[in-house]
Amino acid sequence: MLDVCLLGTGGMMPLPGRALTSLMTRFNGSSLLIDCGEGTQVTVREKGWSMHDVDAMLFTHYHGDHISGLPGILLSMANSDRTEPVKLYGPPGLRRVVNALCIIAPGLPFELEFNEFNDVEEYISLNGYEITAFKVNHNVTCYGYTIYIPRAGKFDPEKAKNNNVPMKAWNRLQKGDNVEMDGVIYTPDMILGPKRKGLKVTYTTDTRPTEGIVEHAKGSDLFICEGMYADPEKRADAIKKKHMTMQEAAEMAARADVGELWYTHYSPSLVNPARNIKEMKEIFPRAVAAKDRRTVELMFEED
Amino acid sequence: MLDVCLLGTGGMMPLPGRALTSLMTRFNGSSLLIDCGEGTQVTVREKGWSMHDVDAMLFTHYHGDHISGLPGILLSMANSDRTEPVKLYGPPGLRRVVNALCIIAPGLPFELEFNEFNDVEEYISLNGYEITAFKVNHNVTCYGYTIYIPRAGKFDPEKAKNNNVPMKAWNRLQKGDNVEMDGVIYTPDMILGPKRKGLKVTYTTDTRPTEGIVEHAKGSDLFICEGMYADPEKRADAIKKKHMTMQEAAEMAARADVGELWYTHYSPSLVNPARNIKEMKEIFPRAVAAKDRRTVELMFEED
Repeated sequence: MLDVCLLGTGGMMPLPGRALTSLMTRFNGSSLLIDCGEGTQVTVREKGWSMHDVDAMLFTHYHGDHISGLPGILLSMANSDRTEPVKLYGPPGLRRVVNALCIIAPGLPFELEFNEFNDVEEYISLNGYEITAFKVNHNVTCYGYTIYIPRAGKFDPEKAKNNNVPMKAWNRLQKGDNVEMDGVIYTPDMILGPKRKGLKVTYTTDTRPTEGIVEHAKGSDLFICEGMYADPEKRADAIKKKHMTMQEAAEMAARADVGELWYTHYSPSLVNPARNIKEMKEIFPRAVAAKDRRTVELMFEED
Repeated sequence: MLDVCLLGTGGMMPLPGRALTSLMTRFNGSSLLIDCGEGTQVTVREKGWSMHDVDAMLFTHYHGDHISGLPGILLSMANSDRTEPVKLYGPPGLRRVVNALCIIAPGLPFELEFNEFNDVEEYISLNGYEITAFKVNHNVTCYGYTIYIPRAGKFDPEKAKNNNVPMKAWNRLQKGDNVEMDGVIYTPDMILGPKRKGLKVTYTTDTRPTEGIVEHAKGSDLFICEGMYADPEKRADAIKKKHMTMQEAAEMAARADVGELWYTHYSPSLVNPARNIKEMKEIFPRAVAAKDRRTVELMFEED
């Protein structure tokens, strides 16, 4: 099960009742956070989740509304007695920006591990999460993220027997380990059927629509995408500021045929994004004008 | 009239329903802000006040919970089309800390004017505010603030006539200007009675009790002081961490004989500070367990 919470849905500045856009996931005791503007730690508390187990923080880019909450979060994690290292991922400049902000969070009791992206696509394997970061199109270097929880094939005892895998090895092989016995190396694929559908979430904000986003979003159970502007007349603004309209996001969701589209990163001037959702549903029926702390528990399909 | 709003009352970390401690005042079209932790800009919006006219921001010290909201505030002020310079005041390190944080708030359309304190006491005269910063006793250099709105004496036409002040000069002299006429310089004191009581607010947080606080708080209409701990048994913690208990603050308020004491900067572990207010009132009857956005309009006394 993958818990996904869109902690906030605001762009540019936090508003009463609309925190800055940030995504948190929980899987198998390990949490991820994508972006953390000012106030993110409050929304985590409002949700009743904990920052303590956030093993990695991923940044789309370093505009203030996506990272201004970092020093406060790190201080609060320190207060919650975290001592395990925290991995940080993001575009070039990560170390410089985080170290500058940490002038007000000195002496943390855990290490920060910096991982700056060099390529158009980067892959991260972490605590059961398979994460792809991919470059999008904003006015500064900005990445989108796909979080994938793979699911192994079903145990196939016939196959195991046909491959002469000793029964003693079955349990460990089912957990995904290779096993050596009597000089023979057994691999999980020798006892498992074809890989099954995993869980997939794609998150993009602060970008024009791109082919890359459509490609990466394909097969996602959930596609979280900015809906900065609702009025189609704002498209010129969106192009100029390298953001997108709700309509453009819906068109990408339709092309990628995702499970659900959640809008986020609304302009402060967009007071009621739900008002526009009917039109968006004509483009993509499973579009949702998300509000702060919208949550879903994604489950593997029944066999 | 001096509007005073204690925007938040939390210490260490922002909580749902309890923003970090920050004070905002409005006088004669000019606003001041003392401290601005993460989320302060949201409480300003919740209050319905505006950041646009904040001409000066004063910092007690640079622990994260007192300054982490600065970059977001500056970005929002930029979005509200502020172009006038913003004056910043605080202990040594101000420029270094603010410039580091502003890595995520580049290209502001207004100037930041840095004013770092060198002395144990510093005086600031700004848009009708007479401000005193005075060193307190925390584990880093930390200042308290007294904000004073002076009030000139009442116009005394007898005195003006006795001093041979031409009637033409009376209006400008009443506004506080010196006036030169026919080679004679006239000063406001030549037409005004003795100075009248002004408005005074003292704000101290993150400190042990000190004699200096008591001295500066004397005559204050309002004394805003940390009440980090409620349980008298926490006094050892307070001494160690250079904070204070609600009881210690009440004792200072009683000695300074202030108009009212508002507690703030509660420890996150202090869930309901109001529960302790009855005991505090035995020490100082006008003690208030302030909540976020507690506001008062201080008025000059009737003549």
